[in-house]
Amino acid sequence: MTTTTTVGTPEWLESIQRGDRRALAKAITLIESNRPQDSAVVRALWPLLLPYRGTALRVAISGPPGVGKSSLIEQIGLQAVARKMRTAVLAVDPSSPVSGGSILGDKTRMPHLSSHAMAFVRPTPAGSTLGGVARSTRETMLLLDAALFDLLLVETVGVGQSETEVAGMVDLFVLVLQPHSGDELQGIKRGIMEMADIILINKADGDMVQAAEMTCHQVHSALSLRAQPAADWQPCTRMVSAVSGQGMAAALDLFTSFRDTLSASGALQRKRLTQASNWMWQRLREGLMARFMSDPTIQRLLSELEPLVCAGSLDSVEAADRLLAAFYPKGK
Amino acid sequence: MTTTTTVGTPEWLESIQRGDRRALAKAITLIESNRPQDSAVVRALWPLLLPYRGTALRVAISGPPGVGKSSLIEQIGLQAVARKMRTAVLAVDPSSPVSGGSILGDKTRMPHLSSHAMAFVRPTPAGSTLGGVARSTRETMLLLDAALFDLLLVETVGVGQSETEVAGMVDLFVLVLQPHSGDELQGIKRGIMEMADIILINKADGDMVQAAEMTCHQVHSALSLRAQPAADWQPCTRMVSAVSGQGMAAALDLFTSFRDTLSASGALQRKRLTQASNWMWQRLREGLMARFMSDPTIQRLLSELEPLVCAGSLDSVEAADRLLAAFYPKGK
Repeated sequence: MTTTTTVGTPEWLESIQRGDRRALAKAITLIESNRPQDSAVVRALWPLLLPYRGTALRVAISGPPGVGKSSLIEQIGLQAVARKMRTAVLAVDPSSPVSGGSILGDKTRMPHLSSHAMAFVRPTPAGSTLGGVARSTRETMLLLDAALFDLLLVETVGVGQSETEVAGMVDLFVLVLQPHSGDELQGIKRGIMEMADIILINKADGDMVQAAEMTCHQVHSALSLRAQPAADWQPCTRMVSAVSGQGMAAALDLFTSFRDTLSASGALQRKRLTQASNWMWQRLREGLMARFMSDPTIQRLLSELEPLVCAGSLDSVEAADRLLAAFYPKGK
Repeated sequence: MTTTTTVGTPEWLESIQRGDRRALAKAITLIESNRPQDSAVVRALWPLLLPYRGTALRVAISGPPGVGKSSLIEQIGLQAVARKMRTAVLAVDPSSPVSGGSILGDKTRMPHLSSHAMAFVRPTPAGSTLGGVARSTRETMLLLDAALFDLLLVETVGVGQSETEVAGMVDLFVLVLQPHSGDELQGIKRGIMEMADIILINKADGDMVQAAEMTCHQVHSALSLRAQPAADWQPCTRMVSAVSGQGMAAALDLFTSFRDTLSASGALQRKRLTQASNWMWQRLREGLMARFMSDPTIQRLLSELEPLVCAGSLDSVEAADRLLAAFYPKGK
């Protein structure tokens, strides 16, 4: 019955801001596309969207597979919509081999939230390159922000480099663990604990409560030894249960308290602008390297020199200098 | 009385391998120089030195100012020379404002080790750019390795980005802390604990022993929560006293045990070749960025666009794309 408007028109912007999920999904598909003509449409979007930036609180929800991130995100999302906060979720695609989840449609993972009128649940694309996912995740967040969502929850699996990238594009980094997670922590990327502003110990229900308390205590000791990210916010640990719902309202309170505290001090705005500047530099580094790597002369020389460096028979510096000289022969 | 030979000749190589400190110091000065003619001499050294690589165990000794790194390094160095291990130290220059040390000549900081015939103590240059220090530190280590030293100790102050860079060029990363260092740990760079293979709690003497035990225990708990760097080596914590000498022989035993364990499994060789490959890629990234940044068109455009990104009025991606288009106008 409904006809979706063309992406990029003022009518389209109005419809995504009214909560038209189909119009939103259409634009995200363009963002995730690798086709040049789609990229051109997306590039033309930013001037239109820029005036509407900065409304949404951007939260990463990270943690190893099996700790119950999806259920927890759904519960927090339901708390948020009950508070009239429009909530969008970028969920890990459960059909992706890296997610560690079972092969289920996204709707069946967050059934209640997905069907709520104030919510929007979207699986993040799997299978493409890491850098590509980071780019499309960031651009999708810009879009959702301009669509006037109040809360963006980005799910990530706490095992890869992706956490560092996602941490660089959100306001708040939440790490989810489960009781007895001494072992699970082994699988977590080094330093991920260092990035967390809030650590939630999920599954603190039934006969797991005591184990959750112990884990909470261990994590707290580990946090007390680490460097403090900012004087504005003290990283903290809370026990929750996505199954019983225990602690979920308090967790969302903590999110909004984080936002309010950092907004009041100006730290949130500073963090966002620093992230924007970092992102520009990262794009520049990637762009320079991409052009370097796509040069046939470099590809040929690299396939010759890299094995020598890896075998220890050519020094790294000499190899690098020879490659640079081949790329900029006229000394640009 | 002695005349030093010209750097780069076979006679010079023979003299540094015999332990001629003056011939060694001369080459390090060339490595640290920024003059193009010196760089050319240094570049010509590597083919001569390459066959002698891989003898020395490279150890970073890191930790916040005031924990007694210099005394500890001197004690370990004296233990090593007593075991007939030729030992070289790259010490933080105490006159540098970042070292946090007092303004003393290097000789007075490690007086016994400096004057030992089997040892070589050299302050690392201060004041130059971080990347430059990293480069010259790495190249000096290659030189010392070829000079047939058995043990290289590289001192770093655990407060900056330099630790990550140094960690990428050593075999073994040692973190030095002191009793009651809950507070001092605040000043340590995020993630530095994650890089440590061995953590030494110094000043475990007199009425500090109990506090040292408590710190040891705290650090041990923090370590048990972190990801393991490799199955080959379990990070461990030891109490030492550079003043009483307590634990110093055991610390050196631990260093050699690290080397033996990782050599036997092949992990040491793999680590070194991975580092060589990483270093090549880092040099490439730096080289690409350096040429980009030295382009006048880019400098002009960047001074125009970066403030807009930092003010939130231009998106990062658009800024980056415009800069890249200006650098590669013909689409290289």
